[in-house]
Amino acid sequence: MVVKKSEDFSEWYNEIVELANLTDKRYPIKGMNVWTPYGWKIMRMTDEFIREELDATNHQEVCFPLLIPETEFKKEADHIKGFDSEVYWVTHAGLNELDIRMCLRPTSETAMYPIFALWVRSHSDLPLKTYQIVNTFRYETKMTRAFIRVREIHFFESHTCHTTEEDAQSQVEEDFVILEKVMRHLALPYFLLTRTEWDKFPGAYYTVGVDCPLLEGRSLQLGSIHHYRENFSKPFDIKYEDVDGTLKHVHQTTFGMSERLVGCTVAFHGDDKGLVLPPDVAPIQVVIVPILAKGKVEEVMVAAQRLRDDLKKSGVRVHLDDKDERPGSKFYNWEIKGVPLRLELGQRDLAEGKVCFAVRHDGTKGSFLRATTVEDVHSKLQEIMRVMNESAWKRLSTAVATIDSLENPPKKILRFGWCGEESCGREIETRTELKILGTPYIKEAFHAKCLICGKETDKPTYAARAM
Amino acid sequence: MVVKKSEDFSEWYNEIVELANLTDKRYPIKGMNVWTPYGWKIMRMTDEFIREELDATNHQEVCFPLLIPETEFKKEADHIKGFDSEVYWVTHAGLNELDIRMCLRPTSETAMYPIFALWVRSHSDLPLKTYQIVNTFRYETKMTRAFIRVREIHFFESHTCHTTEEDAQSQVEEDFVILEKVMRHLALPYFLLTRTEWDKFPGAYYTVGVDCPLLEGRSLQLGSIHHYRENFSKPFDIKYEDVDGTLKHVHQTTFGMSERLVGCTVAFHGDDKGLVLPPDVAPIQVVIVPILAKGKVEEVMVAAQRLRDDLKKSGVRVHLDDKDERPGSKFYNWEIKGVPLRLELGQRDLAEGKVCFAVRHDGTKGSFLRATTVEDVHSKLQEIMRVMNESAWKRLSTAVATIDSLENPPKKILRFGWCGEESCGREIETRTELKILGTPYIKEAFHAKCLICGKETDKPTYAARAM
Repeated sequence: MVVKKSEDFSEWYNEIVELANLTDKRYPIKGMNVWTPYGWKIMRMTDEFIREELDATNHQEVCFPLLIPETEFKKEADHIKGFDSEVYWVTHAGLNELDIRMCLRPTSETAMYPIFALWVRSHSDLPLKTYQIVNTFRYETKMTRAFIRVREIHFFESHTCHTTEEDAQSQVEEDFVILEKVMRHLALPYFLLTRTEWDKFPGAYYTVGVDCPLLEGRSLQLGSIHHYRENFSKPFDIKYEDVDGTLKHVHQTTFGMSERLVGCTVAFHGDDKGLVLPPDVAPIQVVIVPILAKGKVEEVMVAAQRLRDDLKKSGVRVHLDDKDERPGSKFYNWEIKGVPLRLELGQRDLAEGKVCFAVRHDGTKGSFLRATTVEDVHSKLQEIMRVMNESAWKRLSTAVATIDSLENPPKKILRFGWCGEESCGREIETRTELKILGTPYIKEAFHAKCLICGKETDKPTYAARAM
Repeated sequence: MVVKKSEDFSEWYNEIVELANLTDKRYPIKGMNVWTPYGWKIMRMTDEFIREELDATNHQEVCFPLLIPETEFKKEADHIKGFDSEVYWVTHAGLNELDIRMCLRPTSETAMYPIFALWVRSHSDLPLKTYQIVNTFRYETKMTRAFIRVREIHFFESHTCHTTEEDAQSQVEEDFVILEKVMRHLALPYFLLTRTEWDKFPGAYYTVGVDCPLLEGRSLQLGSIHHYRENFSKPFDIKYEDVDGTLKHVHQTTFGMSERLVGCTVAFHGDDKGLVLPPDVAPIQVVIVPILAKGKVEEVMVAAQRLRDDLKKSGVRVHLDDKDERPGSKFYNWEIKGVPLRLELGQRDLAEGKVCFAVRHDGTKGSFLRATTVEDVHSKLQEIMRVMNESAWKRLSTAVATIDSLENPPKKILRFGWCGEESCGREIETRTELKILGTPYIKEAFHAKCLICGKETDKPTYAARAM
């Protein structure tokens, strides 16, 4: 690693992504990158955790077409305004020009809802809870960045329909529980912040952003949860017959998170030696490096292979690095790749019935008894998950500074009083050059005056350098 | 079911797909259908079997961008000729017209190979074995049909690079082994037929088609395996440094199969009562229907729930149908859905310590002892897989008729002598109104004269009504 994380975060991020070979950015379309095997495995494991939680809460997996006819896409006015400058248009098929242009999904409301209008007939069809894991497309004009700002985006989106606003509201609460379980696998902390009116999802009643704190007042939005009320069900005519025979529009919600989960795992946990992966999403959880002294190669290698086989059989994702290279250079490479636990096995360890270990995230070292190594590795991986989660949430709390004036704000995520008026909010954004993320969805004890107009408020507002 | 399979195969297929709710064809773009939860589960399980075999043979999963710049797409002359009339073009992004048009992948050679040229440097990088599971797009002008002829196609494609033609050739042989293992889960029989020169994949050295026999001389191509030699590595400049220091072009292969696997499972196994799913890909392997007599409802329901829990815990995908409906109507619905095994549990069974069963594919009925039901269900599901595979391969052999003249050919897949000349081949196609599928990849004992010119040949040729 050439650049230090604390010195140039952006450069450091680009370097680590490349050195760990998480993606290949040389594809001839800017912002559309190739998922290499290592990066894709992290993404796929993350997808599986999402799937697990969505399935467990009775969401049904579906897959809707990528292309959306312009006529459907334009049905909800705010929605089209929000995406007009961002969508890719298919205008020709084969040698023909199409009568109706089709866009690549920037998100699937307008693909799904004409069909939901057919699926939902009666109150007994509700709640309708669906999700899909697909790629989505946005013509990003800002500088692109691997996983964080790309033009083809891997993501999941859940879409639900409910009889009442309250039932939709409980869905939002269920989404928070799902989110919490998924994020634990990535050891990522986050704020749940209700976005401002001018920053909510186009067409939403309200939007809750999921924001992870990074270095120096930066935050990264990982996903969002939207309550739509009837804003889409009216233009798309999604109605159900209630118990009393009347026809009513459904209330809808969505929840989505993207490949930014991978980018954030890199950005939040990585250090100056490279990636640091939480064991739950590490393609390789344990690497074994045999320490080969001259003449004793065979014995150590056989022992290392046996250790690998034992670990594999017990369900650990383990790799034996038996290349003809110096151990030091292997250590260096696997540190870049972020492998959570390294085991070393040499002639002396063999004689002493031991296996040495080194933990990636905190650099601790020690040894296991060979006889109990399999159990010890499992406990250690669990411990790493627990400690990484604990320290992540500690970092979140220290990433925030509560301020009561705009004089020399610290380089942190700022927490302050804001009256809620757009004019004051815009002024705070202009003067701090930060973005208002919103107010905590879960009430925090707070009392302060608006930084601009001085009006009292009992809700804090958060602002950060958005990535 | 209104239509009989033997009377109107096409209508029967459309009806069964709709009744079983495998897909929703009401999406407002023709040939782009919605994967409903039931159909998508079958597809996803099939994908997992494919993934398992590809991972086990050291293929690395990747994910390449969907969009391909026209400049890359046009690098291989035959390839572009083959796809020119079939691709969708993105010409606009946001409010801008693009400088270079981009097509939606019809297949990924031209997306992957510019990057392979960067990944492959030395003989030690080879073989490079990759695959991806994505959707692909072809502007189909013929009549569309769910899973079989659609415009957005779910598929997998493996792409490999090798040092020599022989090594690429061994990859083709490995693909046959992978294929065999995947097809066993679907209980589908198939021919491996080397396509004619005029029908091979655009750019291929040779193509082997995987064809499944359906009713009355119909066959359905499920996938294909291609040997490219250096046909793509030359235009895309994929070279490696050999041990002696010389630069050589790689030899390439691909293997792909699509959602037709689902369509073929429907078409091959289904009957006049509905779907018939092989247990390995059945979203619900066992349905329990409680037979409720008046007054004893509670007791039977509790026993049914316990049975469901026992089966679930043992790893069976089981559903307890506890709706308030007549058993007969439940039987009817689960037969349409193709559930392999139905269990019935009533008051008398409870008293006798029994559980009644009915097997979907052959209609056999019987009973298990309640005490051994869990083990019995596992054995029965395995037996169903075995018997469905056996009978499938028997049907393959009876689907073929060897002929020595074109007079009144039977309504079967035809097997005959053909000299290999295009003119004779085309004439056979015209006179039979069939499509020549090719000659068996695995040599069959055969000796005959070309049906047209009379020249002797020791290779049979197959022709069928292609779907």
